[in-house]
Amino acid sequence: MKIVISQLNYVIGDVDGNTSKILEEISKARKVNADLIIFSELAVCGYPPKDLLDYPSFIDRCELAVKQIGENSSNIGVIFGAPSWSNLDRGKKLYNSAYFFENQKLLKRIDKTLLPTYDVFDEYRYFEPNKIFECISFRSEKLAVTICEDLWNIDDQKMYKLIPMDVLQNENPTLMINLSGSPYSYNHVEKRRNRMQQNAKKYSLPLFYVNQVGGNTDILFDGGSMFINKNGDVVEECAFYQEDFKIIEWSSGSVYPDNHQDYYDYDISLIHDALLMGIKDYFTKMGFKKAIIGSSGGIDSAVVHALAAKALGGENVKAIMMPSKYSSKGSVDDAVKLAENLNSPYRIISIEETVESLNSTLEEEFEGLGEDITEENIQARSRGIILMAISNKYGHIVLNTSNKSESAVGYSTLYGDMCGGLSVIGDLYKEQVYELARFMNRDGKIIPQEIINKEPSAELRPDQKDSDSLPDYSVLDKILFHYIEEKKGWREIVKLGMDEDLVRRIIRLVDKNEYKRFQASPTLRISHKAFGIGRQMPIVAKYDH
Amino acid sequence: MKIVISQLNYVIGDVDGNTSKILEEISKARKVNADLIIFSELAVCGYPPKDLLDYPSFIDRCELAVKQIGENSSNIGVIFGAPSWSNLDRGKKLYNSAYFFENQKLLKRIDKTLLPTYDVFDEYRYFEPNKIFECISFRSEKLAVTICEDLWNIDDQKMYKLIPMDVLQNENPTLMINLSGSPYSYNHVEKRRNRMQQNAKKYSLPLFYVNQVGGNTDILFDGGSMFINKNGDVVEECAFYQEDFKIIEWSSGSVYPDNHQDYYDYDISLIHDALLMGIKDYFTKMGFKKAIIGSSGGIDSAVVHALAAKALGGENVKAIMMPSKYSSKGSVDDAVKLAENLNSPYRIISIEETVESLNSTLEEEFEGLGEDITEENIQARSRGIILMAISNKYGHIVLNTSNKSESAVGYSTLYGDMCGGLSVIGDLYKEQVYELARFMNRDGKIIPQEIINKEPSAELRPDQKDSDSLPDYSVLDKILFHYIEEKKGWREIVKLGMDEDLVRRIIRLVDKNEYKRFQASPTLRISHKAFGIGRQMPIVAKYDH
Repeated sequence: MKIVISQLNYVIGDVDGNTSKILEEISKARKVNADLIIFSELAVCGYPPKDLLDYPSFIDRCELAVKQIGENSSNIGVIFGAPSWSNLDRGKKLYNSAYFFENQKLLKRIDKTLLPTYDVFDEYRYFEPNKIFECISFRSEKLAVTICEDLWNIDDQKMYKLIPMDVLQNENPTLMINLSGSPYSYNHVEKRRNRMQQNAKKYSLPLFYVNQVGGNTDILFDGGSMFINKNGDVVEECAFYQEDFKIIEWSSGSVYPDNHQDYYDYDISLIHDALLMGIKDYFTKMGFKKAIIGSSGGIDSAVVHALAAKALGGENVKAIMMPSKYSSKGSVDDAVKLAENLNSPYRIISIEETVESLNSTLEEEFEGLGEDITEENIQARSRGIILMAISNKYGHIVLNTSNKSESAVGYSTLYGDMCGGLSVIGDLYKEQVYELARFMNRDGKIIPQEIINKEPSAELRPDQKDSDSLPDYSVLDKILFHYIEEKKGWREIVKLGMDEDLVRRIIRLVDKNEYKRFQASPTLRISHKAFGIGRQMPIVAKYDH
Repeated sequence: MKIVISQLNYVIGDVDGNTSKILEEISKARKVNADLIIFSELAVCGYPPKDLLDYPSFIDRCELAVKQIGENSSNIGVIFGAPSWSNLDRGKKLYNSAYFFENQKLLKRIDKTLLPTYDVFDEYRYFEPNKIFECISFRSEKLAVTICEDLWNIDDQKMYKLIPMDVLQNENPTLMINLSGSPYSYNHVEKRRNRMQQNAKKYSLPLFYVNQVGGNTDILFDGGSMFINKNGDVVEECAFYQEDFKIIEWSSGSVYPDNHQDYYDYDISLIHDALLMGIKDYFTKMGFKKAIIGSSGGIDSAVVHALAAKALGGENVKAIMMPSKYSSKGSVDDAVKLAENLNSPYRIISIEETVESLNSTLEEEFEGLGEDITEENIQARSRGIILMAISNKYGHIVLNTSNKSESAVGYSTLYGDMCGGLSVIGDLYKEQVYELARFMNRDGKIIPQEIINKEPSAELRPDQKDSDSLPDYSVLDKILFHYIEEKKGWREIVKLGMDEDLVRRIIRLVDKNEYKRFQASPTLRISHKAFGIGRQMPIVAKYDH
């Protein structure tokens, strides 16, 4: 039996476009005489479709597409994901379904059982869980088809009471198929492969695992679809960060050796590629070509500039250097050098006049009061206005350059350096930003060494250094990681050997700045706990845990 | 039997504070020889606690509080809500529980069965649904205790497969108790009462329904706890928008007449009170006293100013008038008149110098290009900077003055007039804003009639009127309501007799501006579909439904 894994990049909501892509792939599969082609979860509408699913007209449109794809299943089995009406008297109105057509006939609709509702997932917001389990006879095989999370409930800490494959196994299937929408995070690649291998071994069945690829605002799908043999060896693995069309000759008697690429749990090159794809797809899918960056000569904007140049072409990224009287000469020079390295247009626009006019405008209101954080924020916001004005004038998108460490503790100005359509490195702690800079410089100096070497500074007052108000990033990032990713309270973090006053101060800063992050731009997600929809903390609240 | 309904205003996360309040109420109830006191859902941690629930140390803290409250139950039954560890091998780690103590003994822990996961609710993100149903014998009664949504699954379109009371009824209870966390929206008050009356009638049982009160960022709890007799009459109803301690002498033989206040499905006075509470609690719970408002002389900022003055005291709201060369003389005069009516401090700060300096700063960059929306946005953002600077200098909070109509179509400037810590009228369509203005003026002219009469204008270019680029608000608001609240696609709206081109243009504007709303401030929620966490639409997407 010839089986095709079709790993595609879908556009959310674009039912027409996604359907066309699916139909093309079916034609391609038919040309190579494939018996079966498999697409990923919710392929017809893209993942995650979010509250588009609340629109009945949208579901009706998806059902039309399902029909259209079904009509194009002559001589080939086609499995793909789409939402479907549940038509139940009681329960949620929709299922997250996999449709299985052959020769214009619906062989079966399989509905998802386990609905992830945590972190960035919210499927129970829309879908009713399936309670009916049946395998599907197809040619000489018996297929156990499941959808994404249905195969994940297999480790020691089971999040759901039911294990769908345990039920399906009773019918003695010969093959497992899983339609997936499994987004990237840096510790997910290895975990996902292990989990799928565990399934193959547990049930002693081969598994065709079909993921999707592409950036959908903040969520990044990395692909890596697999064919795993019944011993748990990864026989075929699809590309990462690219569409793929993988033909697999399958027969139950054959021997399939382990053949997987060696990715590690934490790999800066995968983070790098994920961010590139995230930038690229954000622009392509929104219909934009060009980006603007406020380039300070610091490490954060340098890394974002270098990433954007790689994703969009250096000539499509415009760097704006906006020095003030507190900017060192080196800052502008370094930013210019970077722009030249990247072949990017740039312009130096002083904020002095704007800052002075604002200070003079506010003189009467602030009479008799000393300078404080207000004047620093005025600088950051003047830069924000200038960037947004250029964005408005040319229709280019401002890329935000904040990192996760500063977002966490609120070391950033709302409507100032927090502005932008997309945060590129907002899920990387400062130390990871440095790691990424070194990685990008591995084949030559894209990012000037001066930028990597200089001590971090916001340059908003004379001789300011980040270390004036924050601990070393090596310490800060560690506290933040334990609080945010590991969800430890302050007592637990102190037990790890950290200073109590410091830990509590940092945690209070994180909590206090929830109101800022609520208004932040979407952030490319590369960790298992990114700021944004995956971490929903109360704003008006009081806690100290 | 003497039963107390304790309707309190909790602070999210403030386990210490909430526990103290609960203990005080228990003392008070004991003093009046009450047999039983009932608190609302998740009283110990406040509702919604959101991802605080992901922190094990937070759950442990709540369990300590549960123990402490239990220890204070001498001679009185105490029922209150708190999260609890599920201790299951499989399934989510937490339950949304009601604890029932008497004389230091836990009589029963009741766990919530139906977990609302739609709109602003996301309980399946955290909680495992209950599957065990048992009534509780207490003195001479048999109590059927449920939690909020457990009693809602009673109409024609059932969202859940199970009806918990149907199961509990088998044990022949004599009384129903429901612990609730049911937020306000303008069409919810009547619906909630009806639903609870339906329950009383269906099971022919009296019902003690205990809600909470108070604003928690965007979510507004309106109270209105009830005692309903077995015929479905509302015998007692607690205050709206205030804490309440209601003592009810209950015996199964007594006759209890219908006694409910006459609230209507849509009542502008309830919206008014909800917004006042929302402002007040935002400031009180955050520990702030004073607000700043950009006061343009238009209807939106006037209504927000008037509301804030009522909630915080006129002297605690500072109005900043920021005219440009496009502002009419009347605008500043009207805003000044309003400030004087409200006894608020105000200051007139021209943005001319700032705008000129920005235009001159950008002159070279924009050489040869004509004026467009960029220059309008520069004005709006100059105002934003000035407001934020004053906010930073004095530690006062900027109140956002956008309405729902303009948020919907993106008729607003990101980082400009979209700035602020809290959006007060962001869930009111423009026509509702006028309605509210007229309501607030019912006993005299708080808001100058000139402001109500003038044609809406952003005053960002000469003689600009909203109607230059938008249809009449009476038409716009109708289209928006059908698209946003009613979730109709364009075809359905056109069928209602609206112009196709217009409807599609407006819907496209709504969709296109998702990226702006993503970065908007939290918005006091008064409708059943407010922008914010309750309406999660994709940003990078393509759809036309």
